[in-house]
Amino acid sequence: MPELPEVQALADFLRARTDGLVVTGVELGSFHVLKTFTPPPEALVGAPVDGVGRLGKFIDLDCGGTHLVFHLARAGWLRWSDAQSATRLRPGKSPIALRVRFDDGSGFDLTEAGTQKRLAAYIVGDTGQVPGIASLGPDPLADEFTEEVFAAILGSHRMQVKGLLRDQSIIAGVGNAYSDEILHVAKLSPFALAATLDAEQVTRLYTALRQTLAHAVATASGKPAKELKDAKRAGMRVHGRTGEVCPECGDVVREVSFADSSLQYCATCQTGGKPLADRRTSKFLK
Amino acid sequence: MPELPEVQALADFLRARTDGLVVTGVELGSFHVLKTFTPPPEALVGAPVDGVGRLGKFIDLDCGGTHLVFHLARAGWLRWSDAQSATRLRPGKSPIALRVRFDDGSGFDLTEAGTQKRLAAYIVGDTGQVPGIASLGPDPLADEFTEEVFAAILGSHRMQVKGLLRDQSIIAGVGNAYSDEILHVAKLSPFALAATLDAEQVTRLYTALRQTLAHAVATASGKPAKELKDAKRAGMRVHGRTGEVCPECGDVVREVSFADSSLQYCATCQTGGKPLADRRTSKFLK
Repeated sequence: MPELPEVQALADFLRARTDGLVVTGVELGSFHVLKTFTPPPEALVGAPVDGVGRLGKFIDLDCGGTHLVFHLARAGWLRWSDAQSATRLRPGKSPIALRVRFDDGSGFDLTEAGTQKRLAAYIVGDTGQVPGIASLGPDPLADEFTEEVFAAILGSHRMQVKGLLRDQSIIAGVGNAYSDEILHVAKLSPFALAATLDAEQVTRLYTALRQTLAHAVATASGKPAKELKDAKRAGMRVHGRTGEVCPECGDVVREVSFADSSLQYCATCQTGGKPLADRRTSKFLK
Repeated sequence: MPELPEVQALADFLRARTDGLVVTGVELGSFHVLKTFTPPPEALVGAPVDGVGRLGKFIDLDCGGTHLVFHLARAGWLRWSDAQSATRLRPGKSPIALRVRFDDGSGFDLTEAGTQKRLAAYIVGDTGQVPGIASLGPDPLADEFTEEVFAAILGSHRMQVKGLLRDQSIIAGVGNAYSDEILHVAKLSPFALAATLDAEQVTRLYTALRQTLAHAVATASGKPAKELKDAKRAGMRVHGRTGEVCPECGDVVREVSFADSSLQYCATCQTGGKPLADRRTSKFLK
């Protein structure tokens, strides 16, 4: 999923392309995607795009004072078209969740792959009405986010740093990928307890957090939407690189998996005595 | 999480206890839990409880034509009190997400354990405005849910039967636990493809689906909210019983885990050379 640097780049990209345009259509490909009921999508039609911003991992399109806010979640993405498809989007099994059109014929689609439909859009008068935005923690790239502020945050949370970095209500915008990267740069275990870090470790983590994100924002900046995903992946040192070589020391990059769900069955009763493959353990079963 | 039988029992339990009562308070412990903005919670105050129903895994409290709808998700639960706490719920880190009060001093809390906050409540004029309800598939205990209807559903989906049973837009109300149980009773592999089942397998699965759920509803019926969780667990044959003995054939109950997330790190750079424990593989690492 896109995190702070890519969401910032997407917001910048959209701002540059939609400046001066007027919304001419908002169509839903999935009823699930829109989490608000009033105002309806039609309320945006005819409104000028007054600005595009980022709030944590949310993108905020200010359309004449009414805001279209969206969060791309795990498998969501934005696809820009200078010439938007003429086809009216209809709710169904399409991977396109939402389509927006502008008065010069351009537009964008929000797409979502996979079965877990988490992409979320909101149409609100005030971005504070979006639950995930109302509870966002500070932006780690803001001037006010000093080392002292960060030290106070770490000191007040008895939780693992990996979880703290990813918790949007503690720090806005960092997800699974950049938290892996930041911890690798800081040379800290993901399971280290935030409140027990010493002053030197706090400085290392603060520096790694700011530099990693600032570098990623600079790399993503100005790239079109369709190149951002590959650029993010290419820039990763350990995230998504299980089994590859650590660029720092040459050791192998390791993985910890979190089994969020499981099923139980009886091989004799249900599968003719054959154990089913388990992504995590099947290599040991063979 | 509660599934069809427990949600039905919770709805029946609430209906019996709230009949004739009037809502005197709705308080939020978490802003995240309420997914709608208008009408506000205060709109329910003063309204009589006109009925309590179940829609898939959703519970619907009809309060004078305005509906309080909620879904307990993975770690949510309902706690009833004949004498509701006098303390006004305040948004914060409380595990209580929503508190409802009635005019005889009773009330209930919706609680949610863990960090993944998925419990969702909606206040709507029409239950069809709740996205998850609008897309619900047929109720498997309804009279109209005949074997012919089920056969047509299976035949039109090229997906694994475990996933099909759990998909709320295909069949409403069955989750991870009862789908394990149903497949064990039907002696079918969870990975069997729905569209390729033969007539005899379809009959077996239909019978297992209806009987397992009807039996669970009968067992849960009339139990108070606080006993439902244990009763559900006690009734399971294979679900949650990895390593125990299959009650049907005496083989061992097996598990397949699905790793929904993972992190990467370098042991040399980050953890002093020590690999971190992985719930799935650590038993092999020792």
